[in-house]
Amino acid sequence: MQPTRHIATAGLALFFLALSPRQADEPVILGFTQEGAARELALEEQFDTYLNVDNLRGWMQRMTLKPRHVGAPYTKETADFIAAQFRSWGYETTIEEFQVLFPTPRTRILEMIEPEPFQARLEEPELPEDATSGVRQDMLPLYNAYSADGDVTAELVYVNQGVPADYEELERRGIDVAGKIVIARYGGSWRGIKPKVAAEHGAIGCILYSDPRDDGYFQGDVYPEGAYRGEHGGQRGSVSDMPTYPGDPLTPGVGATPGARRMSVEESPTIMKIPVLPISYADALPLLRAMGGSVAPPAWRGALPITYHIGPGPAVVHLKLEFNWDLAPAYDVIARLRGSEYPDEWIIRGNHFDGWVFGARDPISGMVVVMEEARALGELVKTGWRPKRTIIYAAWDAEEPGLLGSTEWAEEHAEELREKAVVYINSDSNTRGFLRVSGSHTLERFMNEVAGEVTDPQTGVSVLERARARRMVGGDAEAIERSDLRINPLGSGSDYTPFLQHLGIASLDIRFTGEGSGGSYHSIYDSFDHYTRFGDPSFAYGVALAQVGGRAVLRLANADVLPFQFGNFADNVSKYVDEVVALADSMRDDTELKNQLVDARAYELAADPTHAYVAPEREAPVPHLNFAPLLNALGVLLVSADGYDAALGHPVSSSLSRDARGSLNRILISTERLMTRPEGLPRRPWFTHQIYAPGLYTGYGVKTLPGVREAIEQRDWEEMAEQVVFVSEALERVADAIDRAATTVAGTTD
Amino acid sequence: MQPTRHIATAGLALFFLALSPRQADEPVILGFTQEGAARELALEEQFDTYLNVDNLRGWMQRMTLKPRHVGAPYTKETADFIAAQFRSWGYETTIEEFQVLFPTPRTRILEMIEPEPFQARLEEPELPEDATSGVRQDMLPLYNAYSADGDVTAELVYVNQGVPADYEELERRGIDVAGKIVIARYGGSWRGIKPKVAAEHGAIGCILYSDPRDDGYFQGDVYPEGAYRGEHGGQRGSVSDMPTYPGDPLTPGVGATPGARRMSVEESPTIMKIPVLPISYADALPLLRAMGGSVAPPAWRGALPITYHIGPGPAVVHLKLEFNWDLAPAYDVIARLRGSEYPDEWIIRGNHFDGWVFGARDPISGMVVVMEEARALGELVKTGWRPKRTIIYAAWDAEEPGLLGSTEWAEEHAEELREKAVVYINSDSNTRGFLRVSGSHTLERFMNEVAGEVTDPQTGVSVLERARARRMVGGDAEAIERSDLRINPLGSGSDYTPFLQHLGIASLDIRFTGEGSGGSYHSIYDSFDHYTRFGDPSFAYGVALAQVGGRAVLRLANADVLPFQFGNFADNVSKYVDEVVALADSMRDDTELKNQLVDARAYELAADPTHAYVAPEREAPVPHLNFAPLLNALGVLLVSADGYDAALGHPVSSSLSRDARGSLNRILISTERLMTRPEGLPRRPWFTHQIYAPGLYTGYGVKTLPGVREAIEQRDWEEMAEQVVFVSEALERVADAIDRAATTVAGTTD
Repeated sequence: MQPTRHIATAGLALFFLALSPRQADEPVILGFTQEGAARELALEEQFDTYLNVDNLRGWMQRMTLKPRHVGAPYTKETADFIAAQFRSWGYETTIEEFQVLFPTPRTRILEMIEPEPFQARLEEPELPEDATSGVRQDMLPLYNAYSADGDVTAELVYVNQGVPADYEELERRGIDVAGKIVIARYGGSWRGIKPKVAAEHGAIGCILYSDPRDDGYFQGDVYPEGAYRGEHGGQRGSVSDMPTYPGDPLTPGVGATPGARRMSVEESPTIMKIPVLPISYADALPLLRAMGGSVAPPAWRGALPITYHIGPGPAVVHLKLEFNWDLAPAYDVIARLRGSEYPDEWIIRGNHFDGWVFGARDPISGMVVVMEEARALGELVKTGWRPKRTIIYAAWDAEEPGLLGSTEWAEEHAEELREKAVVYINSDSNTRGFLRVSGSHTLERFMNEVAGEVTDPQTGVSVLERARARRMVGGDAEAIERSDLRINPLGSGSDYTPFLQHLGIASLDIRFTGEGSGGSYHSIYDSFDHYTRFGDPSFAYGVALAQVGGRAVLRLANADVLPFQFGNFADNVSKYVDEVVALADSMRDDTELKNQLVDARAYELAADPTHAYVAPEREAPVPHLNFAPLLNALGVLLVSADGYDAALGHPVSSSLSRDARGSLNRILISTERLMTRPEGLPRRPWFTHQIYAPGLYTGYGVKTLPGVREAIEQRDWEEMAEQVVFVSEALERVADAIDRAATTVAGTTD
Repeated sequence: MQPTRHIATAGLALFFLALSPRQADEPVILGFTQEGAARELALEEQFDTYLNVDNLRGWMQRMTLKPRHVGAPYTKETADFIAAQFRSWGYETTIEEFQVLFPTPRTRILEMIEPEPFQARLEEPELPEDATSGVRQDMLPLYNAYSADGDVTAELVYVNQGVPADYEELERRGIDVAGKIVIARYGGSWRGIKPKVAAEHGAIGCILYSDPRDDGYFQGDVYPEGAYRGEHGGQRGSVSDMPTYPGDPLTPGVGATPGARRMSVEESPTIMKIPVLPISYADALPLLRAMGGSVAPPAWRGALPITYHIGPGPAVVHLKLEFNWDLAPAYDVIARLRGSEYPDEWIIRGNHFDGWVFGARDPISGMVVVMEEARALGELVKTGWRPKRTIIYAAWDAEEPGLLGSTEWAEEHAEELREKAVVYINSDSNTRGFLRVSGSHTLERFMNEVAGEVTDPQTGVSVLERARARRMVGGDAEAIERSDLRINPLGSGSDYTPFLQHLGIASLDIRFTGEGSGGSYHSIYDSFDHYTRFGDPSFAYGVALAQVGGRAVLRLANADVLPFQFGNFADNVSKYVDEVVALADSMRDDTELKNQLVDARAYELAADPTHAYVAPEREAPVPHLNFAPLLNALGVLLVSADGYDAALGHPVSSSLSRDARGSLNRILISTERLMTRPEGLPRRPWFTHQIYAPGLYTGYGVKTLPGVREAIEQRDWEEMAEQVVFVSEALERVADAIDRAATTVAGTTD
């Protein structure tokens, strides 16, 4: 579709469509009959004409005037504003309130005692070039939500990114963090992993800092000259143990309604057990400069103008943190457009609206897109159109401390959602750049079709083609040959998690990314001024995302047959199976090699005897593992997927009866649910999905086939054997459903 | 051999040998009969007993008191001192003098004019912890020898390491250095490549600096707290075009004797055409901080606390350099121990003694080893022993400005050397660490045997076993399975070059390296104080290197049949052939892929339209190349090598007659000569060796099969076809010689 076609007004849309080459070629889109497709495409053209870039800019400016964290006065004001907007566009709108644990800081002290005194500043200064940076009313300072209270003094140890592999490196040097305070740079994992792993190793406190190598002048000019984090900028953020469960730490699995049963703060397994504080690189520099001991290995060194040492000490620091452990209200705005034909099939589209401070990019850049989509749909409704399925637009509160708004809502409405939810489509931060689609692979084909229809504002090709170009240049050989671009599997980090990984609802996350430079993340400088200079100055990518999101919602809501497709799903699962088999093989080879080297004393002989060094010890060999159940189930899935995709045909046959379509759609909706197992994953029953989960030690980073993959990584062969069976059973359930879907089609069209 | 055996005195050596397990196993060493091996091993044990660590320390302290560059008064004093020592140990010793072009600086000005004035300091300060750092008499300041005179003012462009790939990156950004002054960090190539490539692209001046990422605080604590380069430290060095020819720039191919025919400075192709100046990172920081334009790509960024920009400008600098273009004397000390049986077969062992300033590590740490070896051999002579072959110990002057001392001597004596030289063995800097052997692969087996006999001072295993452990841990799978450790092919960077690559004399370079940390290279801080803290404080690795070098010299001098072996040579050539075939294949694939991406407009679509970007253009496809002559010659070589190694047997049969041994040795000596081609390599006839050369655009870095490899890299398919024939002919000549050697053995032992 060319940009010029967007100028068509609603009335002209059908006329334009008649002239377009598409009509001549007979339009075909996934899930629609020939006639349905023509109507749908006309509707989408009309939808595009309503999108108004000025709304995005205006709403962002309005919503980012004041701090908007959980419980702040402006958060409630914003919820009310969003709700009023939705209502004005014709949506049945409610605000659902939850009471969630949201600690805020009362005392924050970080000081160095040895070898010389230093008091950390812990503040981000006002900048004349940034209009809101001087606002102090309601501004949450630098802190990590769900850190423990604590008052600790100890030698400092630099632990690089603080992930498990870093502790193995420390072990090689004979360095123990027990009883110490660790300082870790951001990066390499979700932040909550760092204090969790530190505490597991006996550390009594944890400092997180933004190294300029990862997030500062090494990356580009710092704000306000450029977009990147300046020396006093810091990164707030949650450190609850989200890979165990997200949401309110006191009410896992149930909605945090006023009367809900709550565990105590002490009982909550997801609240960090040691004090944690995020600091700027200006505050980190004196601490790191004062350290001695081993020089850090090359990969650990940042961009501060010092030699990085590991310690322990001689730097000794005092860290004192106290929090108000209060409940706060979280306000989810829920807006509905009732479906005309299948009101109990819900297409849900959401974005959070709370921010750590002003949160322009994160999350308002996405929120305004979702709002503009909803408004444009409202305009379509005014012309007489109604969606076949119910559309729900959601504005989530309390995402920042751990997906609380979405999780509590999903938990509260779990039963209804398991019954009715078709797809959840999430957005969050959005900037200039390349379309990134992540989510359920049963929707991979569908989203490729959608992305092929939206024009990139800078280049005039489709956003699909531009994303493909980036992958091609990035060395992804598949992007040249595979007809569909793969979508990314989802880990965690935004509000899709409760829908996908807890409830088994097919989900997507869509955003543009890659050209909105910057280091404003979770700082006071994530502002309207920053975003309109460095994020998406013209909001053109906001409009483009509304075109993608709007099309996805419209097609899902209107489809004759829900546009799930299983060939791509099976192909991606096949790739994951290959990966876990290769993982076991490479672990076996690596272990064998390592043991050879241990036996040859190679590690000790290669080490510099003037440095402390603890050579690794022999490891038990990695046995050959039984992947047969998984391979067999995959084989069945591949056949079933081919069978259904062939049976359905493209376009959908108009001879498929209304009843058949109804049954078929119910089966299709069930497929993602069948990928879950009610008992959940080992050690984290909240996560039920057998194909996608955030990693226990990566946090946001996805682990596909998580039960199997993490068992292999942890060398737990017994658990691996068990998990292989669970995943295989899930694949077989899906294959069986696909077979029933194919039979349903065949039974009515033959 | 265990350390305890080194305490045996000369008189006891045979007794110990009689008790040693070796005797029971019947000693076997390459090139010796059974009886010869027993004698040789006894001799080596005796040799070890003479080595005295105090000599190494004392000589280093004495020779590093004053600056010792070409033409400095202390350089002549040092030559006289070394010569006197050799004489006192019983060597026929001469000092050979050459007159070489050696420019020294008269004016050095570097200043920034825009956007703010800054005057570079260009000086290394005295440090109380470094006794000689305050010496200013005769001290050459920071400069690059063979820079052009110049007085230029222009905008600055940051070109990363200034290698050809960096200019491709500049081209992608539409940045042209014509008429600009470039600033390049050290690293990634020999320094002389940087101004050469800059000048080829039209730059009018070049600044080289030591970035702290590569050579400063990023690597470790700076001097004097640690070993690394401090903010005012700089790296002197030559920028003559050594890959074209080393040695005196005015007398290529002939000795720079007083009466030699000299070209003018203007005529010399190896003198740099633009002014070049090396600076410290303290001097570079204000220049780099003042730059604007594109942010440098991640791999270009160093460890200064700034955002690295490419420019051009707004920094404008003024660079003014003037030199005294004088001839200076170079004094080579040549000491001979005449061979008893084959006086016209020469084993040459050398190290240079000139330094940029005090040059303790570079080169005195190697020089004192070579001297102690020579002294210990002198002690053996006092007991009545004489080598069968003539041994020559050489102390080279004028290595630093471009291997002048060794090159002029090799050129002056070329005819005699081609006739008589068996092997040249080089050393240079030596530190604590791991034995690194580089050189002719006909000596790979031999050096593995030698290295297996010398005990590592820190671990008690052999230096071979420790080197193997390091490679194993470093991920070199071959090191676990291949019975011999590969030795490295030689590029350039020290005095072996004229012997190996100009004259075709089998050569070796031996040194310990890897645990002597530091950034003193070519600074005034390369001092006795630095070396004895961070190089090899106990000089134990100096003694270990004397044991390696002494054994190599002794065995080569005494061998019944020279210990060349061709199986390993053929195996290494085979690896190089595989590499060039794979290089062509991967270039073909890469070009095809690149053209696909160009055709799909992927580069332009993936680029950020707000940044300047010039997409690459289609390249001519890489044709399939005819490697058949090379593969056929290799096949012949492999068979011949097996044939000789099997025919000779191990140990050497004592039935081989004296005449046969004589003929055989003459053939063996000829083999390396047969690897050369008198016409030399394309565009650099001085380099005649067909297997090893420094890269035209790497400088020190080796290119094996250089004619073929560089033709492929330059996409010159016609030249490639020509060079394949030349290399194949060289291999066939060697194979033919090996066949004759095998026939000689067979004819006399059957």
